[in-house]
Amino acid sequence: MSKLLIVGTVAFDAIETPFGKTDKILGGAATYIGLSASFFNVDSAIVSVVGEDFPQEHLDLLTSRNINIDGIEIVKGGKTFFWSGKYHNDMNSRDTLVTELNVLADFNPVVPQNYKDAEVVMLGNLHPIVQSSVLNQMTVKPKLVVLDTMNFWMDCALPELLDVMKRVDVITINDEEARQLSGEYSLVKAAAKIHTMGPKYVVIKKGEHGALIFHNKDVFFAPALPLEEVFDPTGAGDTFAGGFSGYIAQSEDTSFESMKNAIIHGSNLASFCVEKFGTERMENLNKEDVYARLQQFKSLTQFDIKL
Amino acid sequence: MSKLLIVGTVAFDAIETPFGKTDKILGGAATYIGLSASFFNVDSAIVSVVGEDFPQEHLDLLTSRNINIDGIEIVKGGKTFFWSGKYHNDMNSRDTLVTELNVLADFNPVVPQNYKDAEVVMLGNLHPIVQSSVLNQMTVKPKLVVLDTMNFWMDCALPELLDVMKRVDVITINDEEARQLSGEYSLVKAAAKIHTMGPKYVVIKKGEHGALIFHNKDVFFAPALPLEEVFDPTGAGDTFAGGFSGYIAQSEDTSFESMKNAIIHGSNLASFCVEKFGTERMENLNKEDVYARLQQFKSLTQFDIKL
Repeated sequence: MSKLLIVGTVAFDAIETPFGKTDKILGGAATYIGLSASFFNVDSAIVSVVGEDFPQEHLDLLTSRNINIDGIEIVKGGKTFFWSGKYHNDMNSRDTLVTELNVLADFNPVVPQNYKDAEVVMLGNLHPIVQSSVLNQMTVKPKLVVLDTMNFWMDCALPELLDVMKRVDVITINDEEARQLSGEYSLVKAAAKIHTMGPKYVVIKKGEHGALIFHNKDVFFAPALPLEEVFDPTGAGDTFAGGFSGYIAQSEDTSFESMKNAIIHGSNLASFCVEKFGTERMENLNKEDVYARLQQFKSLTQFDIKL
Repeated sequence: MSKLLIVGTVAFDAIETPFGKTDKILGGAATYIGLSASFFNVDSAIVSVVGEDFPQEHLDLLTSRNINIDGIEIVKGGKTFFWSGKYHNDMNSRDTLVTELNVLADFNPVVPQNYKDAEVVMLGNLHPIVQSSVLNQMTVKPKLVVLDTMNFWMDCALPELLDVMKRVDVITINDEEARQLSGEYSLVKAAAKIHTMGPKYVVIKKGEHGALIFHNKDVFFAPALPLEEVFDPTGAGDTFAGGFSGYIAQSEDTSFESMKNAIIHGSNLASFCVEKFGTERMENLNKEDVYARLQQFKSLTQFDIKL
């Protein structure tokens, strides 16, 4: 079984959408990535940091999904990273209400000895210096390194982001971020430019409009499943990344053909994530639901024009 | 060979995009629909109206594509419908600079005797009363009636639009129009509501984000081909409609499976239309190019997850 090393936040979120609002609930990129990847046959571990205020039950949830948490540091007397946000009516944009870095401010990731040879490394959205630090600790070159990032780091830590980008195989960003990073409006041109910055594979997430993966002249598209209601988009991108990296780790196949399946799996899992607040839907999801909806993805996209 | 009756404008356009601007060039919904449908094996005819200022060469172009133009009325001393618009930098929005209805203001469509039994009727974007008038003239119930419309008629002629909608099988509108018409933000809910207004098939065009077709609980998605550059979006929606209706007429198959292929063909042809100003690319397109790009649509969307 392949090892999947996941680096990212484990956090508290408070979310407001047109459908309601939550108190402080479980959140964080690594949480969503881990829950999503747990639908695949992989040996995964999270590297992160939380405060002493972080409930044991949340850690137990991760453990119950066979996620190794030796790399989650618990800072005595520290407070867990907290993010609060409010989505607009169209669910495509949001305002950040509160960001309390807390223990994340001094996060110094330590990769557990047993995962320094992980075949797949999923670098969740974090400061690029933290992402680089994880790669520095790997004793065996991973078969695949996937990097997620966001516009915040393009604004505040571009040189460090460009450094870590040189060391990764796949980058996942949204369409606006791809445009910002490349200076190109056309996503085809943007992907070509981002290729030259390091990643051989460029995944562009378009939210309700699906996701594209570019590799040299090849391109593949995974639609988002048309849903009656998007309840809470929080974690959808991370769930997508967890499905992507989890599938690649399970398949032990890093070909472009395999990555096509990986972004379909990622889109499929993300379509569940948005159906409830926070991690609720991912916690209660079973493999039968996942496979039934994959069939919907097939019906949604497969056609039979004879050529 | 099936007959395809096309109703819509034949017009002059003057277009400005970030890539340049044109003088008065050939335009109009029926023009784009007809050129697009001419890539299929169908007997098509256009019902429209132009002024005496309309050049014979434009009519000859349509005739050279085996499009019957007996139904294009030439109004003596009249001036042809003229539209001028300017696209914004993102190419997704535009300002209308000039709309001169001219002969269109008194357009009274007359369906040629020989096409009153057309198997497929494609009602291009026009006043819904004009669209209804064409249906009234059909002596044999068509196998499929496709209606294209826009927000302008929702604002100014909603009762008449709702009337004609009851008489059509397929409606094609964009995402914002689907939301306006239904009062639902979710496109799944919007399509369900529009079903109840008449059309059994609801096609929602999302421009660079592709197109969806809904039929009861079934849904199929055709992506837009990711392009390096969109040069001029004018006519893309009509070209899509022409590919859709042309394919259905050729296949003589109005099943949902056939409509899946139809929206792929429509998306494929539209992807060419936007590569040059106005009708230029459609005029110079050959079937080899069309088939080569269909292969790209397959590569873009077909995956192989075993279920």
